[in-house]
Amino acid sequence: MIIAIDAMGGDHAPESTAAGALAAAAEWSDLTIQLVGEESKLAPLIGAGLPNLHIVHAGEVISGEDEPVKAVRRKKDASMVVAGRMVKEGLADAMISAGNTGALMTTGLLVVGRMNGVERPALAPMIPTLDESGQGTLALDLGANMDAKPEHLAQYALMGSLYREKVHGIQRPRVGLLNVGTEPGKGNELTKAAYPLIAELPINFVGNVEARDILDGVCDVLVCDGFAGNILLKALEGTAGAVFKLLKQELTSSFKAKIGAALVMPQLRGLKSKMDYKEHGGAPLLGLNGLVIKAHGSSDAEAIKNAVRQARTAIEHRLVPSISASMEHVNQQISGKRVTDQ
Amino acid sequence: MIIAIDAMGGDHAPESTAAGALAAAAEWSDLTIQLVGEESKLAPLIGAGLPNLHIVHAGEVISGEDEPVKAVRRKKDASMVVAGRMVKEGLADAMISAGNTGALMTTGLLVVGRMNGVERPALAPMIPTLDESGQGTLALDLGANMDAKPEHLAQYALMGSLYREKVHGIQRPRVGLLNVGTEPGKGNELTKAAYPLIAELPINFVGNVEARDILDGVCDVLVCDGFAGNILLKALEGTAGAVFKLLKQELTSSFKAKIGAALVMPQLRGLKSKMDYKEHGGAPLLGLNGLVIKAHGSSDAEAIKNAVRQARTAIEHRLVPSISASMEHVNQQISGKRVTDQ
Repeated sequence: MIIAIDAMGGDHAPESTAAGALAAAAEWSDLTIQLVGEESKLAPLIGAGLPNLHIVHAGEVISGEDEPVKAVRRKKDASMVVAGRMVKEGLADAMISAGNTGALMTTGLLVVGRMNGVERPALAPMIPTLDESGQGTLALDLGANMDAKPEHLAQYALMGSLYREKVHGIQRPRVGLLNVGTEPGKGNELTKAAYPLIAELPINFVGNVEARDILDGVCDVLVCDGFAGNILLKALEGTAGAVFKLLKQELTSSFKAKIGAALVMPQLRGLKSKMDYKEHGGAPLLGLNGLVIKAHGSSDAEAIKNAVRQARTAIEHRLVPSISASMEHVNQQISGKRVTDQ
Repeated sequence: MIIAIDAMGGDHAPESTAAGALAAAAEWSDLTIQLVGEESKLAPLIGAGLPNLHIVHAGEVISGEDEPVKAVRRKKDASMVVAGRMVKEGLADAMISAGNTGALMTTGLLVVGRMNGVERPALAPMIPTLDESGQGTLALDLGANMDAKPEHLAQYALMGSLYREKVHGIQRPRVGLLNVGTEPGKGNELTKAAYPLIAELPINFVGNVEARDILDGVCDVLVCDGFAGNILLKALEGTAGAVFKLLKQELTSSFKAKIGAALVMPQLRGLKSKMDYKEHGGAPLLGLNGLVIKAHGSSDAEAIKNAVRQARTAIEHRLVPSISASMEHVNQQISGKRVTDQ
């Protein structure tokens, strides 16, 4: 298994990516890691190195400020683009980047390429949940596609279900459709049209789920369009942030409260880290001709190593070929249903 | 000023509505309160009564389980429908109900009637904010209209702005458009098309606002379609609920934490009530030929009295005529713009 890492992407790159690559190469001898970036910077960071860790030189870098489409089209020698090309050409089974999210999605689309039958690749981060298992839910799409068609949501449902099964080992993952009520027939035009399509897929569809129940862990996969997903994710983040901020203020408002606060601080910290979606691994870009994983921009070496673990599990369980095979089957079904309905 | 109260709607009706009506009639001698419902039940609750409080008999009741449209059409003598008819016929300036939300919106549409030029009346509850002023934001639409057109969002913006100005006395209320980023040009097809329409209105449009910033009080009016608004509101509710639940668990997880928890309990309760949207008054239904206020289903006498206060302020400041006059002006502008664009 060969995994390409964009060594230059992320707030702490290339130190974090080099250290993460070293740790991963040391842990998994069945992997070959291709660290893609400026050789003169990477060589000293790797030092003596490891036999299964190589540097692939790439002379350019896409920054966080770069306009995604323009950057990917013009900087053909950027570390991110080179890593994408390696996946496209079969020189790597997966790529990982902690760089510019928009540029990575563009690299996925323009360099790695869409899977046959998938109109819209989806970005699928984990949303933390606060139930006892605390496994989180994989939400898709949370990418650049703000508007979706019912068929797109059905494809997201299928891809998300396969990801949870293959990468997280969940048997029959519960797939929910983000909606305004749990009864079938609820929703806007999009979700009302998507519901019957998803219901016919060979997955464990648990129906509509409401935003207020997500944190209770009602589903393993949450299907939504990019707009609604963004509103949901930012509302979760914002509320958690605001509550903790206010809690901090309130807990230092009196002497008595300060003493109490000191006693409960470990519990508060634990709770805060449970709500931190940054701690929940990299987000796969699903629906491409290869595996692309977006690691968080603030990733440290440990986070990069975790993203490698994710990629390794996905490759081992043949995630991309599985999605491709199922997609073909399902697209026939959807187009068949449309013909029947007319 | 005459205000009709649906005496039979709400979890604690008719005791809560009768007590609220009594308190309001006692406080404001410039008001006449018409308490609409089953006379035999209401008379004993009112006792000697007050000169500005009257019972209007209505023999039927719409329950929480009733199917809204069917109930409003068939139960012509229901307290809610009779109150709506009084507004329609000019026998009351406003109506208040804590009953079935869907039925009240149907009563608004079918009995009270839409304002000329308004395609979609909007339900506009307050979302609590956690900033220092803690004034909250008026969000609309959070009603039954899941899908909206750009013109609808522009009308919501205008109506919300006038409501905040007239009823809450906010000069130049800050109106924000719920979106996935703050830059103009961000969003889905709907918000991208709505943005320039709202920008041309004679209001204080502060542009796009993100879900994570709502609780910080970035705007006084939040414009959204019913679907996105529902996702937002339920995510806020759900996160706050989940955080408090988990906090409770964590704070009783050890002896030391229990002592700390006891010391900080008053602060936690204060925080929880700040997050409780039920405490933030009734939600107006805007865009009708009269004022309709939805009080929360769990309203007690105090909440009913507060809804009367809201209605009184709105009538005093001529909210409905103001909306009607502005709407005419703005609709000309929007249709003018469309002609120019073509």
